[in-house]
Amino acid sequence: MSNHLNDAVDAILESYERHPHIRKIDEKQLLNRTLILGVLRRLQFIIFPGFFDRKELKADNIRFYVGQVLGEIREILLEQIEKALRTKEEYRDVTESAVRAHTAGIVDAFLTAIPKIREYLATDLEAAYEGDPAAFSREEVIFSYPGIYATMVSRIAHELYRLGVPLIPRIMTEHAHSVTGIDIHPGASLGKYFFIDHGTGIVIGETSRIGDHVKIYQGVTLGALSTRGGQILKGRKRHPTIEDNVTIYSGASILGGETVIREGVVIGGNSFVTRSVPEQTRVSAKMPELQFKRNNNVEFQGGEFWNYEI
Amino acid sequence: MSNHLNDAVDAILESYERHPHIRKIDEKQLLNRTLILGVLRRLQFIIFPGFFDRKELKADNIRFYVGQVLGEIREILLEQIEKALRTKEEYRDVTESAVRAHTAGIVDAFLTAIPKIREYLATDLEAAYEGDPAAFSREEVIFSYPGIYATMVSRIAHELYRLGVPLIPRIMTEHAHSVTGIDIHPGASLGKYFFIDHGTGIVIGETSRIGDHVKIYQGVTLGALSTRGGQILKGRKRHPTIEDNVTIYSGASILGGETVIREGVVIGGNSFVTRSVPEQTRVSAKMPELQFKRNNNVEFQGGEFWNYEI
Amino acid sequence: MSNHLNDAVDAILESYERHPHIRKIDEKQLLNRTLILGVLRRLQFIIFPGFFDRKELKADNIRFYVGQVLGEIREILLEQIEKALRTKEEYRDVTESAVRAHTAGIVDAFLTAIPKIREYLATDLEAAYEGDPAAFSREEVIFSYPGIYATMVSRIAHELYRLGVPLIPRIMTEHAHSVTGIDIHPGASLGKYFFIDHGTGIVIGETSRIGDHVKIYQGVTLGALSTRGGQILKGRKRHPTIEDNVTIYSGASILGGETVIREGVVIGGNSFVTRSVPEQTRVSAKMPELQFKRNNNVEFQGGEFWNYEI
Repeated sequence: MSNHLNDAVDAILESYERHPHIRKIDEKQLLNRTLILGVLRRLQFIIFPGFFDRKELKADNIRFYVGQVLGEIREILLEQIEKALRTKEEYRDVTESAVRAHTAGIVDAFLTAIPKIREYLATDLEAAYEGDPAAFSREEVIFSYPGIYATMVSRIAHELYRLGVPLIPRIMTEHAHSVTGIDIHPGASLGKYFFIDHGTGIVIGETSRIGDHVKIYQGVTLGALSTRGGQILKGRKRHPTIEDNVTIYSGASILGGETVIREGVVIGGNSFVTRSVPEQTRVSAKMPELQFKRNNNVEFQGGEFWNYEI
Repeated sequence: MSNHLNDAVDAILESYERHPHIRKIDEKQLLNRTLILGVLRRLQFIIFPGFFDRKELKADNIRFYVGQVLGEIREILLEQIEKALRTKEEYRDVTESAVRAHTAGIVDAFLTAIPKIREYLATDLEAAYEGDPAAFSREEVIFSYPGIYATMVSRIAHELYRLGVPLIPRIMTEHAHSVTGIDIHPGASLGKYFFIDHGTGIVIGETSRIGDHVKIYQGVTLGALSTRGGQILKGRKRHPTIEDNVTIYSGASILGGETVIREGVVIGGNSFVTRSVPEQTRVSAKMPELQFKRNNNVEFQGGEFWNYEI
Repeated sequence: MSNHLNDAVDAILESYERHPHIRKIDEKQLLNRTLILGVLRRLQFIIFPGFFDRKELKADNIRFYVGQVLGEIREILLEQIEKALRTKEEYRDVTESAVRAHTAGIVDAFLTAIPKIREYLATDLEAAYEGDPAAFSREEVIFSYPGIYATMVSRIAHELYRLGVPLIPRIMTEHAHSVTGIDIHPGASLGKYFFIDHGTGIVIGETSRIGDHVKIYQGVTLGALSTRGGQILKGRKRHPTIEDNVTIYSGASILGGETVIREGVVIGGNSFVTRSVPEQTRVSAKMPELQFKRNNNVEFQGGEFWNYEI
């Protein structure tokens, strides 16, 4: 080893001593991000059989196929969820057999929930196909719509979140965020027939509650009024509730844990909503005043409410 | 197999019966997303030779190299496009040999178009390098600019879209969307010297028409006024036309199929435009009024039109 | 080879003659993007040991591990930085041994800087965990927060940028942009305790300077007032300076090289700031006026300053 390299190694080892929070040495509970993302991939194979896995599925091999893939999912989850639980304060001193039994219960509950997840995704697919004139076919939606992928991952992660699994749900949703630009916290609950169009820039916070037949466009935030409290605010409802049949157009922000958007509301693009909206209301934001200038003459100036899309 | 796993498999198989739309079992026309993305990768090798493939290219092996890679592209496209065509209603009952002949015609037309795609990309590269003070060199633009990548994929996908290929163009552009945050529908047509800066959050709808020397910043939407009609609106011009030498700054939305932004127009940041703009006009949006507060005193309050960048 | 394929190859080779800028044939200085991204991955292993690499690290093998990974990083950087330097005008005619010696100096300086990068990242981690009520644990932040990843890559790339390395830093930050939607130019300098929440759509320009304890939300732009000058503006300070303890909420734009946001300022969501802001000031933008309509009656109309989050 060259002297320079040697010195650099020494300096790095020294820095490991100074910042123990950001190293894991001599620890057993190492989550494996690659394996966790492998679970997501296998769930996609199972949920949309024949679309993403390269194997040709036939009626007479499908049972064997599902059994095999589900077995792999189960094995990885048993290992990774146990490790994740061990990072929680309350599981530090629990016996190995008790954690294992608890983990097995979680995994079985999760596997049992897959058909429900699939059923909800079937409704999302209908909403996407029916709602988007640019959709050529249902196959296109499954193969290529980022909103369907993000929704699938959210539904999976939310199930694990509900079952009390730490770390893993967020690793999954942040993977979907990376792939799609759609950031849905695993704590958020989504109703049936959920449709995200385009999607980049969407943020849906941890304590959001979303009803059925809700349609959300790119750049929408369902956020908190303030996060200044930091960790003190943990667990409190900080994000809005969206009831059934609501459409939220691009760039709108809806903020606050007590903000309720009631049944049938349409929120226009770029609206900034921090109060509840009664049912069947159409909210539109006044668009910024525009000035048209040509050869230094102002030829038009005016602003209007966005009534077009809603 | 454990009992739990067994039950979970049964429940999933049952759910396959209930939701036949989202499964492909006993079907032949399975597109392979991985192979399709492999075509994109190989096209990048061919379009920017020596930049992305790890092989060292020399004048005396280049013909062999291009022949080999193009042969691979051709083979995958012949197979995948045939499968994609079979998903269209009108190809359900056509003979195998007729679909093959039609596919071969499409593939040859596409391969013939590669030099044109390359020529357009050469102009895009110039626009990016000349237009961006942060660009260190043309190599940097090719190696790292997301706008160049998204534009390359759009030009490829649009060619296939024009030739009547379903599914595959959208798989390609949604891959680029995932990689870059830039969502350009394969139906949109782009002129020469097209430059996207930063790019995240851009949405360019299916029936947009864009002229030469157009520059677009992050967060711009070329969208529809309404998609409430859903599938009924399919095929209609729903997105704007942008003529030559137009610049559209970040966060602007231009909506509607009859909206035409004429030659030489500059659209300021955050503008919201739903009407046509005559040539050589500078559109600026009134920025939101700002309030500066310090020790509970309002020290400044005011709003102005954004004339800075335009 | 079929005739069609043959013709297509000929046409492509011809196009290589016409557009020599976008090909690299018979050239030696080919950067390898895959190897460069491999350096990033290895740096992540070293910076957060035990989190991302699959190997189990123990106190008695850690020195060997760091030495090995750092040796690989060094080897790749020696090769790739030399190639990158050769693309610069001023290195065209320098002797091979002189370029090598210069490269070795850069690489050693970079390796020596890793503990400092790690130290800064430890502060970023604290800022993320303390500042976000949705953060379950520090491990979750490291494993899944896009802001931490983008910040890590920026700190690495900025070090190489400062050392005069062309191309490679931008390849790194554009990779992070692709993965996270956060676009930070390697020229931008970031202080300690830097926290990005959500992140998609953030743009931080080349000449931005950011102090300690700064918090930035999704969709924020630190940009230039104008890029019309293109390459002529290269090197000039075009982007703002942000001092210590500043928070910038989602969708805000701060533009201009002479714009200074002083100590303790809070910038509200969607503000559009093109002038300097004095210390301890709270800037809020008037939200767009909203109209609530129900059964064609306007039931509410009004706009207000966003005082909620700040």
